[in-house]
Amino acid sequence: MRLRKKDWSSQVFEDASDYTVENFETIKGNWKKEIGNSMLHLEIGAGKGDYWHQLSELFDDRCIVAMERDYTASSIALKKLLENPRSNQRFIYGDAEKLSEMFAPGEVDVVHLNFSDPWPKSRHEKRRLTYKDKLDEYFEILTEDGEIWMKTDNVGLFNYSLVSVGSHKFELVEADVDFRSHEHEDPFTEYERKFHEKGQPIFRAIWRKKKC
Amino acid sequence: MRLRKKDWSSQVFEDASDYTVENFETIKGNWKKEIGNSMLHLEIGAGKGDYWHQLSELFDDRCIVAMERDYTASSIALKKLLENPRSNQRFIYGDAEKLSEMFAPGEVDVVHLNFSDPWPKSRHEKRRLTYKDKLDEYFEILTEDGEIWMKTDNVGLFNYSLVSVGSHKFELVEADVDFRSHEHEDPFTEYERKFHEKGQPIFRAIWRKKKC
Ligand SMILES: C[S@@+](CC[C@H](N)C(=O)[O-])C[C@H]1O[C@@H](n2cnc3c(N)ncnc32)[C@H](O)[C@@H]1O
Ligand SMILES: C[S@@+](CC[C@H](N)C(=O)[O-])C[C@H]1O[C@@H](n2cnc3c(N)ncnc32)[C@H](O)[C@@H]1O
Repeated sequence: MRLRKKDWSSQVFEDASDYTVENFETIKGNWKKEIGNSMLHLEIGAGKGDYWHQLSELFDDRCIVAMERDYTASSIALKKLLENPRSNQRFIYGDAEKLSEMFAPGEVDVVHLNFSDPWPKSRHEKRRLTYKDKLDEYFEILTEDGEIWMKTDNVGLFNYSLVSVGSHKFELVEADVDFRSHEHEDPFTEYERKFHEKGQPIFRAIWRKKKC
Repeated sequence: MRLRKKDWSSQVFEDASDYTVENFETIKGNWKKEIGNSMLHLEIGAGKGDYWHQLSELFDDRCIVAMERDYTASSIALKKLLENPRSNQRFIYGDAEKLSEMFAPGEVDVVHLNFSDPWPKSRHEKRRLTYKDKLDEYFEILTEDGEIWMKTDNVGLFNYSLVSVGSHKFELVEADVDFRSHEHEDPFTEYERKFHEKGQPIFRAIWRKKKC
């Protein structure tokens, strides 16, 4: 018995249930086997899913997993998924907490951080997705050559991340302080398009796990 | 007997001879003792000396050494020196080659690279002042906690340097992709003022010698 009329979003969630992952017990350690691909990208804070959808098209032979904790943004991302779903896409509605309960050590090839919330106040440093405790989590689930790909318009977050990530188990392998000044196959995110159209520079960096 | 009428520049060089260093045999290893200060900054490619002069005022208890290979720029820097010379200033007219013949290991506290020539073509990579062979030279003459301070307007050189320096014996301790968006005591260089007035962002980074 249904207690209340289903809202639009929960209908989307229901329709997209083949693509959402809620229970990690069986899939943890088996993501690639289950989806049938050899590489796995995880986008944390995927927003309305623009990048997720385009990346799953660009890398149609890789698992592309989006994670988002906002309910409305998630349902918009999933609604777009339903218009043109790709078998290599999966969605996690949830917070980037306890990633190690979702992914086995070494299971993820790339963690994407796109236009993450900047949390400019230093008392909120721990909330930044490039804070060292987060990096520890990424480090654990990433493969030996695993990478973090970050894009942002935010000067403070980029400055912070360059030092934070580069001094904590990862080494910088690519940096671009004007990423959209030249052609690149990497898709635009929703925020990126907005900032780029306003003429703001897009910052991007790639770090790889440091060999110890 | 003078063979030709002395030009303006060579007169300046002569008048400033107490501040220029040409022979490194006795001063190498004794810079700080000789000048009477406890720290030493070396600016490579000082141009017309604006930064050198201001830095020697800001850090009047440190040795501030400028190096420049262009004759005209050097003579302008020295002319300005003569208007208001400070005892902590020294000048090297020459190329940043064989730094280890000029400075003993661990003698320099900070190497400054301000708006260095970008050498954008990859076949000229070796000429960039953040190319790994140069970094080896800086590493040798820098103190244990020695630092490289870099500023530039050039996207390509900054991107390159972030990866090159950060992956070669140095670790990034500060990065700023919009250095002049806030107050800072660090003086403007001549180029910096020009680019800043045009509204261009100034990039800056500080790396420290990695502890092995
Ligand atoms: C500024 S938006 C950017 C959205 C998208 N990446 C883009 O570039 O258009 C940041 C998104 O990250 C999500 N987010 C922030 N922290 C998160 C976390 N810890 N776990 C999951 N999502 C998070 C927010 O809900 C928001 O949708
Ligand atoms: C673009 S200018 C910048 C001048 C000054 N630093 C400024 O910011 O206004 C670069 C300067 O570096 C000098 N330079 C380039 N390579 C050098 C080298 N290997 N040794 C000494 N000086 C060098 C050039 O002669 C030129 O004066």
